[in-house]
Amino acid sequence: MRKINWGLIGGGEGSQIGPAHRLAAGLDGAFDLVAGALDHRAEAGRAYAVRLGIARGYGDWREMLEGERGRQGGVQLVTVATPNATHFEITKAFLQAGIHVLCEKPMTMSVAEAEEIVALSRETGAICAVNYGYTGYALVRHMRAMVARGDLGRVRLVVAEFAHGHHAGGDDAENPRVRWRYDPAQAGVSAQFADCGIHALHMASFVIGQEVKRLAADCVSCVEGRVLEDDAQVNLRFDGGAVGRLWTSSVALGRQHGLTLQVFGEKGGLAWAQEQPNQLMWMPLGGRKTVIERGEGGLSPEADRASRVTVGHAEGMPLAFGNIYADLAEAIRARAEGRVMDPAADLYPKAVDGLRSMAAIAAVAESGGVWVDARPPSLR
Amino acid sequence: MRKINWGLIGGGEGSQIGPAHRLAAGLDGAFDLVAGALDHRAEAGRAYAVRLGIARGYGDWREMLEGERGRQGGVQLVTVATPNATHFEITKAFLQAGIHVLCEKPMTMSVAEAEEIVALSRETGAICAVNYGYTGYALVRHMRAMVARGDLGRVRLVVAEFAHGHHAGGDDAENPRVRWRYDPAQAGVSAQFADCGIHALHMASFVIGQEVKRLAADCVSCVEGRVLEDDAQVNLRFDGGAVGRLWTSSVALGRQHGLTLQVFGEKGGLAWAQEQPNQLMWMPLGGRKTVIERGEGGLSPEADRASRVTVGHAEGMPLAFGNIYADLAEAIRARAEGRVMDPAADLYPKAVDGLRSMAAIAAVAESGGVWVDARPPSLR
Amino acid sequence: MRKINWGLIGGGEGSQIGPAHRLAAGLDGAFDLVAGALDHRAEAGRAYAVRLGIARGYGDWREMLEGERGRQGGVQLVTVATPNATHFEITKAFLQAGIHVLCEKPMTMSVAEAEEIVALSRETGAICAVNYGYTGYALVRHMRAMVARGDLGRVRLVVAEFAHGHHAGGDDAENPRVRWRYDPAQAGVSAQFADCGIHALHMASFVIGQEVKRLAADCVSCVEGRVLEDDAQVNLRFDGGAVGRLWTSSVALGRQHGLTLQVFGEKGGLAWAQEQPNQLMWMPLGGRKTVIERGEGGLSPEADRASRVTVGHAEGMPLAFGNIYADLAEAIRARAEGRVMDPAADLYPKAVDGLRSMAAIAAVAESGGVWVDARPPSLR
Amino acid sequence: MRKINWGLIGGGEGSQIGPAHRLAAGLDGAFDLVAGALDHRAEAGRAYAVRLGIARGYGDWREMLEGERGRQGGVQLVTVATPNATHFEITKAFLQAGIHVLCEKPMTMSVAEAEEIVALSRETGAICAVNYGYTGYALVRHMRAMVARGDLGRVRLVVAEFAHGHHAGGDDAENPRVRWRYDPAQAGVSAQFADCGIHALHMASFVIGQEVKRLAADCVSCVEGRVLEDDAQVNLRFDGGAVGRLWTSSVALGRQHGLTLQVFGEKGGLAWAQEQPNQLMWMPLGGRKTVIERGEGGLSPEADRASRVTVGHAEGMPLAFGNIYADLAEAIRARAEGRVMDPAADLYPKAVDGLRSMAAIAAVAESGGVWVDARPPSLR
Repeated sequence: MRKINWGLIGGGEGSQIGPAHRLAAGLDGAFDLVAGALDHRAEAGRAYAVRLGIARGYGDWREMLEGERGRQGGVQLVTVATPNATHFEITKAFLQAGIHVLCEKPMTMSVAEAEEIVALSRETGAICAVNYGYTGYALVRHMRAMVARGDLGRVRLVVAEFAHGHHAGGDDAENPRVRWRYDPAQAGVSAQFADCGIHALHMASFVIGQEVKRLAADCVSCVEGRVLEDDAQVNLRFDGGAVGRLWTSSVALGRQHGLTLQVFGEKGGLAWAQEQPNQLMWMPLGGRKTVIERGEGGLSPEADRASRVTVGHAEGMPLAFGNIYADLAEAIRARAEGRVMDPAADLYPKAVDGLRSMAAIAAVAESGGVWVDARPPSLR
Repeated sequence: MRKINWGLIGGGEGSQIGPAHRLAAGLDGAFDLVAGALDHRAEAGRAYAVRLGIARGYGDWREMLEGERGRQGGVQLVTVATPNATHFEITKAFLQAGIHVLCEKPMTMSVAEAEEIVALSRETGAICAVNYGYTGYALVRHMRAMVARGDLGRVRLVVAEFAHGHHAGGDDAENPRVRWRYDPAQAGVSAQFADCGIHALHMASFVIGQEVKRLAADCVSCVEGRVLEDDAQVNLRFDGGAVGRLWTSSVALGRQHGLTLQVFGEKGGLAWAQEQPNQLMWMPLGGRKTVIERGEGGLSPEADRASRVTVGHAEGMPLAFGNIYADLAEAIRARAEGRVMDPAADLYPKAVDGLRSMAAIAAVAESGGVWVDARPPSLR
Repeated sequence: MRKINWGLIGGGEGSQIGPAHRLAAGLDGAFDLVAGALDHRAEAGRAYAVRLGIARGYGDWREMLEGERGRQGGVQLVTVATPNATHFEITKAFLQAGIHVLCEKPMTMSVAEAEEIVALSRETGAICAVNYGYTGYALVRHMRAMVARGDLGRVRLVVAEFAHGHHAGGDDAENPRVRWRYDPAQAGVSAQFADCGIHALHMASFVIGQEVKRLAADCVSCVEGRVLEDDAQVNLRFDGGAVGRLWTSSVALGRQHGLTLQVFGEKGGLAWAQEQPNQLMWMPLGGRKTVIERGEGGLSPEADRASRVTVGHAEGMPLAFGNIYADLAEAIRARAEGRVMDPAADLYPKAVDGLRSMAAIAAVAESGGVWVDARPPSLR
Repeated sequence: MRKINWGLIGGGEGSQIGPAHRLAAGLDGAFDLVAGALDHRAEAGRAYAVRLGIARGYGDWREMLEGERGRQGGVQLVTVATPNATHFEITKAFLQAGIHVLCEKPMTMSVAEAEEIVALSRETGAICAVNYGYTGYALVRHMRAMVARGDLGRVRLVVAEFAHGHHAGGDDAENPRVRWRYDPAQAGVSAQFADCGIHALHMASFVIGQEVKRLAADCVSCVEGRVLEDDAQVNLRFDGGAVGRLWTSSVALGRQHGLTLQVFGEKGGLAWAQEQPNQLMWMPLGGRKTVIERGEGGLSPEADRASRVTVGHAEGMPLAFGNIYADLAEAIRARAEGRVMDPAADLYPKAVDGLRSMAAIAAVAESGGVWVDARPPSLR
């Protein structure tokens, strides 16, 4: 099969996100990394591109856009892995050029910008995906399939957590990697919810197939001196009637990652944790708790497609992330071939998910404990 | 050592609570069950007392009060294990007679009644204990000791849960044991929070040594037709500055019991679960997660006193419950001997805890998502 | 119901085993501790009996035998909790007097002595029980019931462990509590297998309903200077065709207790661990792993009888131990009343189990890696 | 950095092993898959090579050897993923041509063949690696580093398991994928030990840095009609004095994979399990059990090098497998550049490990419960 020409913006030497994207995109051999604008220092970026064996290294994203737009064999997909504040303009520019984009989260810095991206993606027909990579896990997709096919009956309650302890030590001057996150000037209106909680909310929506309508958030700063929240409890109401509870924290010492999801319906309950992602606990009403194993026979098409090694062997985050790229490869090919894409692959997070996320973040920041509308204006 | 004369009210044949109290009180041989009014059907109660080998079986609690009050060798402690609505008058009557009381929760049906019990216990000098038995676990007491001696530094955040799935099946006419709990006429202003959540709140206060000041509760009824809540999320502020998150549910399919506590301070975090009560997870800031084992050498005096078998052997709920009785035995003896009681035993829940619980339940029922004062009027 | 008069030999002040027996025997109020010879120092023993409120304190077991034999209201059951080397003569003497005995393990110091006890128990009609208390756990009994009713089909393989790390620190002069265990003069032919491994073997036999026929043992002393083994792997063949694997160790640092059992049959597998005794993992062939909870509805009569608190609440070792006493109470009463005992209670370990254990210990000590007969001479 | 030209033999369409190798080799972008003889059906293999975008597809390995040998830009490394019986001749032929080989296990079908491969690799200077991929896990490498730097003191005991239940259903005519494994004509002298147990033995040796000297094996066939063993217990003695226990099974229903390792030394104990590979339990003598997390700061260079994502994020088998390829890339480059390779990468399993494995398998098959020499003749 013909490889898809892929470009990477950001992810310079020493970054964590660059190797993660290259690893994920490389898993199936579906993408060819042919162009990159890897660093805001033009020379460093070009030199790193050479070292990585990338054919066309650019000094910045504008140069790259010029070089690739309309070129025979130019990039079909670009990944935007630059600082948050730049996501909007880069994504916008490439979409306008008809080039597909996978944007790191947050997609934009405001709801209005996010609305613009959604509209642009619709107008241009270019895909805009957002990297909520945790929904790439096979068993997360299986939870969604179980809910969709009715195994749980009506979903009553969803309980999501993303609570870790990595910022419990405080953010003094010696710790710049932590400090900026709690500074409104650099991070915007929300810290921990925007950074982690939003993953949990996206996953909850993804799994139960309902979008959040209203929320009430209790945000606190546990560490002295912080302006933005390092802990939040968010109560939720979804458009299909489900109630939600979401806790996110960065001061929860003893938790390494802490993304978990529990879904409770009329006919059964599910529990999953990112730190042990290959098992899913399933409790049918009136029955016993059972362990669903990733890779076991007879799971849903969604889970089977997202599973790469045999049962009993651990799969981890890089493969989950790779499944987002696998979905994109299928989406891009289906468009190129003028066919409907495999529905089991149509699970990558889209611009509209990025938009909903921006609205939820704004709502959390605004709530002050009171119920507020969590939907973007265009989707009320 | 001379045994303490003990009486039991309620706990008739077929009840679960009667055997549990007899088991707990019998663990150390400190109590002699000499009197009982075991059943609201007088004859059945007397007959059961005979079968249990109880010397003095009574037809009801009033008869028992008459028979025991001032009697040589009369009961020194009575346990009240009758339906909730009767707790207040029975407890009041025995306290007035100068007889110590261990009352099942809820201590009363209203805050005003609870205030009256607290005052009465103070005036008469008779002990009134309330049976929040989960705080009898050795490692729960060790958590309290660790917080008190400063291992965690300032406590920032406490996260408590008591969420199970045993009422997820609904409460139709065929299930009277569930149905009454959600009926305001029988259960009062709160169902799941009053039944389970209050245990989690009491434990949180017990462990961090702070009392709840304000709360905001989001109560919902997930099962159709229920009036009272079967799921609640309660946000808390404690008088020592800690923030609290408390989730309680009876529709969380897959969870058998679900009482857990996590405490996060400046210098470390703790996590404990009732379903695996012999291990406590401890994560010091900058260190690794470690497992504290019940029964290991060198724990706190509070934990050592509450631990009965060697390390590695499981201890369970009956022993935790027994520790409440062991505390009471020490309290009663210390009073009789005119000495100060062992501080490591002065951990049983007291009338004032019952009062605070009633105030918290009222606040949860009243909140509607808004912050309300959670303290009893007398303690504001 | 009339209480059974009970006597305790050994278990003096400061011992761990004395309180454990009093706790276990006291759980159901079935026994009255009326006599004791608690200490090898006669005066200390009598004084301790007074402090415990025991009516008849004796200076030694011979004095107790004289005082209780034939006495109106004399002891019906004695528990022998003295040093190992004295078990045989005390047990023998009380059985000869027609008094039931619960003997701590090991029942004797040799196979020949054990044969004598079995014969004596048969002749006199007096019960001789041996305290393999771990088989009192409700879910261990449920495993036995599942095997017996055919849930697993033919049992192919049983894998048992009892491996801890509490003797990994060595046994220098400062550690007399460890040292004697590895000294043949004091401990006999086997250390770790006789102390711990034998529990695992008894449990395996108990659960699968088969007795060991042959074994081959690889015994090693990992800590320098030890004569007896601190680690052993024993391969087993049972009389019903099952294969067995048993590992026991006292140098396995990181394991607190380490008693586990796995049973694999044609139609399913089971796994249980003493450190989390309230859950049993069950994997039917072709199905998924499921969690059986102690206390859930519809378990076997054997498990229901051995379960005292509601599902989700932890039960621990003291209640398991108490179930041995509960079985004995039923056995003693059934004999007194001339009726057949409840089969769900006829699960306490008997003299013949003590005999089989002595034969297995002798075989392990003799094996040297070679297959040897593991049965007592009288049962070949 | 210049990519290494890589070729794949076997791994045709529909195989599991082919995608696994392509995934693992592709993780770091170090290899370019330029040639393949993917299928024993020549046309199918060539066609599949085209579909995978492989430049040079061959009809069989001999044709591939002719085509690549001495060619400018020819393959530098071939992976041999063909049926077991062909490994020897293919590996031998490519080594003779001076081409590096990564051979699937077993490396050969006999000890004599394995000796020949070891000699050939030494003579030609071509690398021969064997794919014991589980030792690529970061925390397995960290265990090795901890032992090597003395954290455990002298290693006393190593306990390894690889026990699953996937062949418990029997191997009737309908199940050809299982049946051949227990047929000596197709599988050789050993089934379950050769298939799974050998991984556990290799890992034990790898971690403790000692080679097995003697062993005694108890092999049984639990499923009726099987000739070769489906369950084995192997006792071991290592050349550094450690004692070993190894259990492997394919009838252990309830276990999905079941590869675990426990190492016990004078100063501490370690425990790791493939199904939760991102945590390592560490118990220092006199301390508490602690959790070492993959990705946490300050681990060994060996673990840091083998870790690709941040702490708390799961990594799984494909990345472990990828680390074997990463080691090979470094080994091949170091040779090409005439420098000493990074010692933290010199951890891939080598021909000598393949040889030792063949000797251990022969010893297990021969033992019959008796101690036998487990070393290859050349290494006695």
